[in-house]
Amino acid sequence: MNFGAADRGAELAGQVVDGNHVAIGRAISLCENDNEIETTESLIDGIWPYTGRAALLGITGPAGVGKSTLTSGLIGHLREQGQTVGVVAVDPSSPDSGGSMLADRIRMVDHFVDSGVFIRSMSAGRHLGGLAEATFLATLVLDAAGNDVIIVETVGVGQSEVEVRSLVDTVTVVIQPGAGDEIQSMKAGLMEIPDVLCLNKHNHPESDATKRGLLEGFKDERFKPLFVTTEALEGQGLAELWGAIEQHRASLGEDGLRNRRRNNLSTQLLALARSRVISFQEIIEGQVGEKLLNDLEARTTSPLRAVDYLVQARHR
Amino acid sequence: MNFGAADRGAELAGQVVDGNHVAIGRAISLCENDNEIETTESLIDGIWPYTGRAALLGITGPAGVGKSTLTSGLIGHLREQGQTVGVVAVDPSSPDSGGSMLADRIRMVDHFVDSGVFIRSMSAGRHLGGLAEATFLATLVLDAAGNDVIIVETVGVGQSEVEVRSLVDTVTVVIQPGAGDEIQSMKAGLMEIPDVLCLNKHNHPESDATKRGLLEGFKDERFKPLFVTTEALEGQGLAELWGAIEQHRASLGEDGLRNRRRNNLSTQLLALARSRVISFQEIIEGQVGEKLLNDLEARTTSPLRAVDYLVQARHR
Repeated sequence: MNFGAADRGAELAGQVVDGNHVAIGRAISLCENDNEIETTESLIDGIWPYTGRAALLGITGPAGVGKSTLTSGLIGHLREQGQTVGVVAVDPSSPDSGGSMLADRIRMVDHFVDSGVFIRSMSAGRHLGGLAEATFLATLVLDAAGNDVIIVETVGVGQSEVEVRSLVDTVTVVIQPGAGDEIQSMKAGLMEIPDVLCLNKHNHPESDATKRGLLEGFKDERFKPLFVTTEALEGQGLAELWGAIEQHRASLGEDGLRNRRRNNLSTQLLALARSRVISFQEIIEGQVGEKLLNDLEARTTSPLRAVDYLVQARHR
Repeated sequence: MNFGAADRGAELAGQVVDGNHVAIGRAISLCENDNEIETTESLIDGIWPYTGRAALLGITGPAGVGKSTLTSGLIGHLREQGQTVGVVAVDPSSPDSGGSMLADRIRMVDHFVDSGVFIRSMSAGRHLGGLAEATFLATLVLDAAGNDVIIVETVGVGQSEVEVRSLVDTVTVVIQPGAGDEIQSMKAGLMEIPDVLCLNKHNHPESDATKRGLLEGFKDERFKPLFVTTEALEGQGLAELWGAIEQHRASLGEDGLRNRRRNNLSTQLLALARSRVISFQEIIEGQVGEKLLNDLEARTTSPLRAVDYLVQARHR
């Protein structure tokens, strides 16, 4: 046991709970770093009792529909109401933190100087572990830091829309007029994802046609999301969007919210556990496997002993 | 550590190596029994140094093509040459050892009184663990017992044909005239399975047409099996079949055989290792998962501790 590492994690946890922005940034960096698992564990131990208070909101949708502008507008709306906001902006397709995501982030720049807002970008290249794991832990950090609302903004590319659902209480899927393909893909298999469906850029001439197509697509009452239209660039519809999000949370009820969070937590635990173990295939194809097979051929170990060793070797 | 169990396994191993038929039967039963893993481990430890000497042969194909008659004929042919033979007859589709397999076995009954032959039936219902695992361990027992040839006979139902390949040095796939579907399925994805392709019941009127179809199907030289025709019920073609099997072994060469066995062993280790661990999904949906989620909700444990526990709980 490395007490220094555990101590550092615990100390950082205390600073996060105090709402120290530098500590929050460090804590999220730690969650992205696979090499300091012990410090991360004690950090998460320390903050976990302070989590579960924030409203967790996912904003997803295809690139270019205006998610960041909408998030920025929503932050403004929430700040006017005196609420504090934490944002994790995730781009699973980007190998580093540069590029289009950064350009999008610039639209949020006015919030960076506001101490009631904490914004963090994450991209696939920043850490070796799963982006989903780091995102989950980052939401815990922002939650423990006392933010009233946490927004996970992610580029919707099918799988990531499914993943964001297991991180939050309410998923808002953003689309734009004329986005026939996205509507088709939602009809095909992502119908159960959105709790709120937001048609942004509603001043667009094709807006009404897209809206009709969407409403037709969600005929199944079980999966019928709340529907809002926005024009994020002009600040239109933000109050309505927030209203729909609040309406969804209210519709869940206390038990519904608890169940959803419990299911989400179960999904996160499974994903974390799976990321902790190396596949047997990886071991057998590596040096350990080579040695095992040599020992077996030399008859210095037997198959069932080799299997025991293989199972033990699986833990990092 | 239960020294009694380990001692029993070691004692049994000694008796198996001495070729004691009662001990061989007991040892295979032990391999089928999940509840005596410690005894099985010491048994396998004890016999492993004596394995690797037998020629390992798989005989597979659809139900009703005459595999058991062919196996019985092959046993007779090998006994005439003074070779000892061990047989594991596997029926993955049968829930118990009764039914059609048993009827087939009766054709082998004349060999049961021959001390140079050991025949064992295995079906899915006999043990809780994987049939493939028990079959692998049974071949080790028969190998250590000093048999010159070990035959694994299995009903070919796609996956089992693939599995038998990772147990033996040479796979003989048996088909019968007019078996268009099986030939199609071999063309579709099982082309790499047979080392020897045996057209049984070749006195059948459709025999020539089927043979032409087969030869056309295996145009790819890399996967071209040796081809023989037999009429097992009348004892025709058995020497040719054994000749083809020997030819295949010879074509492998010493290095080729060693590589094949090494790859097979690697596949067996992977399968055994996988069967040793419970899936995370099973754990999270069971009582352990329920308690973990309760503790998490009560904030008495944190997510990363829960993940550690989950990973540890995975071992039986």
